[in-house]
Amino acid sequence: MKAKVIVTPKAAVLDPQGAAVRDAMQHLGMPEVQSVRIGKYLEIEVDENSGGVEERLHSLCRDLLSNPVIEDYRLEMVNHA
Amino acid sequence: MKAKVIVTPKAAVLDPQGAAVRDAMQHLGMPEVQSVRIGKYLEIEVDENSGGVEERLHSLCRDLLSNPVIEDYRLEMVNHA
Repeated sequence: MKAKVIVTPKAAVLDPQGAAVRDAMQHLGMPEVQSVRIGKYLEIEVDENSGGVEERLHSLCRDLLSNPVIEDYRLEMVNHA
Repeated sequence: MKAKVIVTPKAAVLDPQGAAVRDAMQHLGMPEVQSVRIGKYLEIEVDENSGGVEERLHSLCRDLLSNPVIEDYRLEMVNHA
């Protein structure tokens, strides 16, 4: 089983890395770029045979993979065919 | 218009950050985690009224946002309703 986690800075939080990339893109031929926000992307491969995986993943997303004060996360489970 | 870009390390490239997160998850109650790979996630807001946006975004993904030697990228365009 595969899990995809996307961690993004909350809308109210400044993202200086995103602002730097926005300025670079505007100077490299894309003046129409209005904003860039940068987060983390994690692909997690999990053994299928254990129960309660999604709940424990949510708990680790909150405690380890994101900082809930300044970041949001999205967890998506992908089952292999 | 919004573009989402995911930059991931190529499969053949070592990902020490992912290995560290995998070990941490295994020690924090998820011994069934087999592998973790970590990449970047970018949300780019683009002005709708200009042409050729997607081609120029692809070109900037290659030149600025990813390192094609060690990373792959996926670009997905999202049109607002």
